Amino acid sequence: MPNKDGISHCMSGFLQGKHQGKSQLNKSPAIPATTNLTKEVIYTLKQAWRSARKGDKKKATKLFVYAIRMAPRHPDVLNNYGEFLEHEDVIQAEYYYTAALSHYPYHQLALSNRKRTLPLVQQIDRDRLARIAAKRSKFYALPLTDPALIRMKRESYYQHVYHTVAIEGNTMNLQMTRAVIENRIAIGGKSVMEHNEIIGMDEALSYINTTLINKAGLLDVQDILQIHRRVYGFSDPFEAGNYRNSQVYIADHVPPPPGQVAAKMTEFDNWLKSSEARQLHPIELAALAHYKLVHIHPFVDGNGRTARLFMNCILMRAGFPPIIIRVHDRFHYYQYLSQANDGDVRPFMRFIADTTEFTLDEYLNYTSVPAIIELNNARRKKNDDVNTDVTISKESTPKGDDKK
Amino acid sequence: MPNKDGISHCMSGFLQGKHQGKSQLNKSPAIPATTNLTKEVIYTLKQAWRSARKGDKKKATKLFVYAIRMAPRHPDVLNNYGEFLEHEDVIQAEYYYTAALSHYPYHQLALSNRKRTLPLVQQIDRDRLARIAAKRSKFYALPLTDPALIRMKRESYYQHVYHTVAIEGNTMNLQMTRAVIENRIAIGGKSVMEHNEIIGMDEALSYINTTLINKAGLLDVQDILQIHRRVYGFSDPFEAGNYRNSQVYIADHVPPPPGQVAAKMTEFDNWLKSSEARQLHPIELAALAHYKLVHIHPFVDGNGRTARLFMNCILMRAGFPPIIIRVHDRFHYYQYLSQANDGDVRPFMRFIADTTEFTLDEYLNYTSVPAIIELNNARRKKNDDVNTDVTISKESTPKGDDKK
Repeated sequence: MPNKDGISHCMSGFLQGKHQGKSQLNKSPAIPATTNLTKEVIYTLKQAWRSARKGDKKKATKLFVYAIRMAPRHPDVLNNYGEFLEHEDVIQAEYYYTAALSHYPYHQLALSNRKRTLPLVQQIDRDRLARIAAKRSKFYALPLTDPALIRMKRESYYQHVYHTVAIEGNTMNLQMTRAVIENRIAIGGKSVMEHNEIIGMDEALSYINTTLINKAGLLDVQDILQIHRRVYGFSDPFEAGNYRNSQVYIADHVPPPPGQVAAKMTEFDNWLKSSEARQLHPIELAALAHYKLVHIHPFVDGNGRTARLFMNCILMRAGFPPIIIRVHDRFHYYQYLSQANDGDVRPFMRFIADTTEFTLDEYLNYTSVPAIIELNNARRKKNDDVNTDVTISKESTPKGDDKK
Repeated sequence: MPNKDGISHCMSGFLQGKHQGKSQLNKSPAIPATTNLTKEVIYTLKQAWRSARKGDKKKATKLFVYAIRMAPRHPDVLNNYGEFLEHEDVIQAEYYYTAALSHYPYHQLALSNRKRTLPLVQQIDRDRLARIAAKRSKFYALPLTDPALIRMKRESYYQHVYHTVAIEGNTMNLQMTRAVIENRIAIGGKSVMEHNEIIGMDEALSYINTTLINKAGLLDVQDILQIHRRVYGFSDPFEAGNYRNSQVYIADHVPPPPGQVAAKMTEFDNWLKSSEARQLHPIELAALAHYKLVHIHPFVDGNGRTARLFMNCILMRAGFPPIIIRVHDRFHYYQYLSQANDGDVRPFMRFIADTTEFTLDEYLNYTSVPAIIELNNARRKKNDDVNTDVTISKESTPKGDDKK
């Protein structure tokens, strides 16, 4: 249960530091010596709590976020924001307690806050995965011949290509993307390279659907190279499928220098084949593989597209439909990846889980199957012969031809 | 000197065969036993000579060509056509005598005809190369800063790309080709692959101009693979730079089966590095390398474009300007390659020599240099100081930056 006494707790925690004054604050065992708060941050936090007590959550949020921007690594600030959030969103609250502890592992308030909230969050995460598993079973049960399902899969193919290249700045809209895939005729005024990004995605998806989905054994780094060869092959046939040999910079993340890329990828390959990875839930594995890949950023370009495809390979091999990171979600997507870089990959995992659930819901809501399932269930109860043309093959999985 | 008695000679030769009748014809030592002429061919040849005697060369030509179509490998027919041609075109005449002998090496008339005409033809070929060498010296002398020369080189770059892809069926016109190279923006309605053919050529030409032109040592098969990687890289990044693994068919030529390609290319590589190849005139070497490459046809596609680029590498390294096989010349070009497949590569070599001479003439006629050369010559005679701003650097060659 969330702590009902959040505010006072926090204020005392916060004021402890303040009342001790700067010099004393340095000696406090609960507060890191190197991250003293400026008067402005302290004032902002006080104002934030004042707004919170008055019920002005919007203003309070704004002030807490401003305080974090001023002292982004200070455990007191992070812990205060967590306590403010806890009543409404225990997951977010626990995230900030964890963040506080990542900067100062002995922060007493953050420790007790996390101890209280972590089991709640873990239960929510388990419930989410269980809910998704139930939906996957329903998705499994969809008859592959359902026209609505076939239409949705085809549509999802074009949508995937559209969104994944749009995230990287491609200016083709969905209709143009579809036209380029279908007839490979150029759209006047668009750059040739924008066309080639789409064609590369088409080739990579075909490869995945015909080869990787049914591959015996575990997916590995060689499969990633094969995906990248196709994704990037038409943009730059010389770089495609090869590790970069220059440094790259992605916002505030600096991936390993080129000399370390091969070793990091070998490490990643070992992890993919490890018992640790194999014991993860497929959604966790998919999200973590995506994150690790873009963290290493092994290619000069096309890392995001390749990571999203590889993630979908893992999901599809586990019986999930391929998911789409939509272009309008890209800032959240980047934020979750950035939080993973800061040490907590769970927000990104939840984002991937939520996107998977959203995709499953779409398939289950817009295909005609729920009605058929109910019809069949009714028949079973009546001991009717279920081997009719509306029979659902429970064994049939969408693997291998779930796109295109 | 051409034989002035061509017709009667021929007629007697032709009639010898005819008067002996079919069974006797088989026993004649001068006529191959397996290629008896039908009455229709004999009648056609008689009519052809009749037209020739009447001065109707057009009709005679038509009839001879028809006879050859009916009996394309018969030495009598080929020898007759050669004799008909000899008065007007000794090179063509000697070609047909040689063709006759390639099918029956003991054909007496063809032997004596060839003995008479070969030295004439060899002299013409030598004269052509000497004339081209003189023009190359003038081309060498062009000052690299001449604005007309710079314009022509740039224009020639776009022309080369346009013609070389147009020969293979690309439907972009020169303006479109230029636009795609300059800004890489797509032309609406054209296929994406047509754009990628142009981009591949642009990449290959850049590679040649920056790397192969100045490469130390001889050109080899590795250079050809590097050219093909670029020419075909954007069309099919998986096949680019790799030997084909399927059989291909080019009109009536069947290149070696895929299993033999690597060995044939090694043989070709050895030839490129042989003293035999190094002793050839650069134009002969360039033409022969082109022919040998398309004969092996090592790639699934892009062989012609690669061969034309490799030929130009050889020419440019020898101080010639790059030449353009124009799309409207493609049927002659194919015909000469086909004649080379039939055993006589000289028509193709002459075609390449003529194209080189045409290109040199263009540079020499349309740059402003002839006037400058004459000015300088006049100055030298007057013992003027030639180190002025119109000095021609005789040492400067167009290598390395003669395009783009």
